[in-house]
Amino acid sequence: MTSYPDSAFLAACRGEPHAHTPVWFMRQAGRSLPEYRKVRGPGSILEAIANPELSAEITLQPVRRYGTDAAILYSDIVVPAQAIGFGVEVQPGLGPVVAQPFASESDLQRLRPLDPEADTPHVLETVRLLVEELTVPLIGFAGAPFTVASYLIEGAPSRTYTRTKALMLGQPALWDALMSRLVDLAVVSLRSQINAGAAAIQLFDSWAGALSPKDYQTHVLPYSKRVFAALEDLDVPTIHFGVGTGEILSLMAQAGSTVMGVDWRVPLGEARRRLGPESILQGNLDPAVCFAPPAVVEQAVTEVLEQNDHHPGHIFNLGHGVMPDTDPAVLERVIDQVHRFPLNPPAVS
Amino acid sequence: MTSYPDSAFLAACRGEPHAHTPVWFMRQAGRSLPEYRKVRGPGSILEAIANPELSAEITLQPVRRYGTDAAILYSDIVVPAQAIGFGVEVQPGLGPVVAQPFASESDLQRLRPLDPEADTPHVLETVRLLVEELTVPLIGFAGAPFTVASYLIEGAPSRTYTRTKALMLGQPALWDALMSRLVDLAVVSLRSQINAGAAAIQLFDSWAGALSPKDYQTHVLPYSKRVFAALEDLDVPTIHFGVGTGEILSLMAQAGSTVMGVDWRVPLGEARRRLGPESILQGNLDPAVCFAPPAVVEQAVTEVLEQNDHHPGHIFNLGHGVMPDTDPAVLERVIDQVHRFPLNPPAVS
Repeated sequence: MTSYPDSAFLAACRGEPHAHTPVWFMRQAGRSLPEYRKVRGPGSILEAIANPELSAEITLQPVRRYGTDAAILYSDIVVPAQAIGFGVEVQPGLGPVVAQPFASESDLQRLRPLDPEADTPHVLETVRLLVEELTVPLIGFAGAPFTVASYLIEGAPSRTYTRTKALMLGQPALWDALMSRLVDLAVVSLRSQINAGAAAIQLFDSWAGALSPKDYQTHVLPYSKRVFAALEDLDVPTIHFGVGTGEILSLMAQAGSTVMGVDWRVPLGEARRRLGPESILQGNLDPAVCFAPPAVVEQAVTEVLEQNDHHPGHIFNLGHGVMPDTDPAVLERVIDQVHRFPLNPPAVS
Repeated sequence: MTSYPDSAFLAACRGEPHAHTPVWFMRQAGRSLPEYRKVRGPGSILEAIANPELSAEITLQPVRRYGTDAAILYSDIVVPAQAIGFGVEVQPGLGPVVAQPFASESDLQRLRPLDPEADTPHVLETVRLLVEELTVPLIGFAGAPFTVASYLIEGAPSRTYTRTKALMLGQPALWDALMSRLVDLAVVSLRSQINAGAAAIQLFDSWAGALSPKDYQTHVLPYSKRVFAALEDLDVPTIHFGVGTGEILSLMAQAGSTVMGVDWRVPLGEARRRLGPESILQGNLDPAVCFAPPAVVEQAVTEVLEQNDHHPGHIFNLGHGVMPDTDPAVLERVIDQVHRFPLNPPAVS
């Protein structure tokens, strides 16, 4: 396994000293890049993901352009569910759509165990191609059980997660069976990515912030905990992320990741007050700020860095994915500014 | 002006002793009620709002069915902007749509001052009809400047508010001019509703939770403050509400409303820890819980009431609007349970 001894990203994940604040951007590979639009071709994102050479190229594009401190695998959180035949498509501009949403016990049969070498060989091949090519760590990822469950149950993007919550609250045995299968799906997928060479992973519980703290604690946290526990022996940094999670941040941290991702609603200083002074954080520039004039972006980046107050455990990122219309020149300036920021406080002589 | 001396709702707004916990539901009038679907007819919601007899009937329906402790005017937060000719439509299932979104200084001309008697006579007529009929207080409402701005700028419902934030951060003078006009629009509309007989008002800053605390404090709070300050002389209770506002709750409270609305993400006990032990709160059952089995709903209602811990300053509500598919029988049971809950702790003898 490649170890990347000089990686600022891996050092920050461990809270160890390093030369500069590492940066990567969620959804750094994708529609915001002209070189992506050039190679992507028509067809579904799932078809693009099924092509290892193309996926590897797309993964590499932002690393080349921006000099990010990590690459993030070009894939989608519904890939494992689709690979075992659940029937998921990703509609452009809309997101994951499920023809027959998960609704009853009989649907459990549609969630057989994932066999990564047989079901997602293209994903593992992409990881292997990337590890040969990359000089920075590759981040693999999976959807957390709750967020994947919400896609499978709602059938289409939702703002309210009504069906998901109704099943969670009204059918606890079915919820447990579903979530347990989604734990296994995430674990098996993540382990296969790590074994193929991913140096870190991120668990996306993107929509967990829709839950009350009590519902999160009772019906979601135990499953996310199982995911991180099942990766412990592999000894790679793990990142746990969702949007609008301020009220459940301390609970999410109990799931046991190495790093907590934070969106722009919780200033990093406040996040460390909640999670402890030694917590390792990732974030948290509002992606919408990238549409403001350069001086405003610069000031906002400065504020994120100052909130971190020279803590060695900070990975700079946006508070959510790069928006498709983002001008890459803005992200180029952001990364340059972050890299130039003096990570360590001036020595007292 | 009618004073409703026995109103539990008004007493709770003032934190004064009263017999039972008052309840009303955001969007209690509307698609969830069969009697609404029967009278509503085709056409836009804005057409229905323009018909005082129909709007009054729709407003009364949930009061009759549920015995809510307050009525909420059947209207829409874009009504004042539409009334002055900005060009807003409300598309069924989608929400407010603006053909020519607000984008530059010339668009300010499209936001002339509201003359309520000339521009929204139907709204005032609806209020007057209702006040004659109702035995419980009528709540008037308006959209807060930020939330209305987001509709005018985005042109259609958004999850990211990119254009709104870009204008807010990038064009501070234009933002100030826009927000100042929207302050006036809200104030004039609310004052006219109160003068026509509304006994309380709610300011909906539904989407303010999309902002970082700093952006809220700098670019939004000053304007919301002006709205509440401009209503002070009328001496009616004011409610301030948004969703996903946990991180900015203390800031929103600084705007100066009588009551803070809280969504289900912040337990009421936690809200009082943040806002002070004497704060008056409205909320906060997750509307999605209404789709769970009766025992689960009952338990969730109990938890909300217990979080309030017998505080006299609590108005029971959902944490957001009633969802269109909600079974009215569920809300009937909720209101019955809330009304039966012993508001005052057992006397210590």
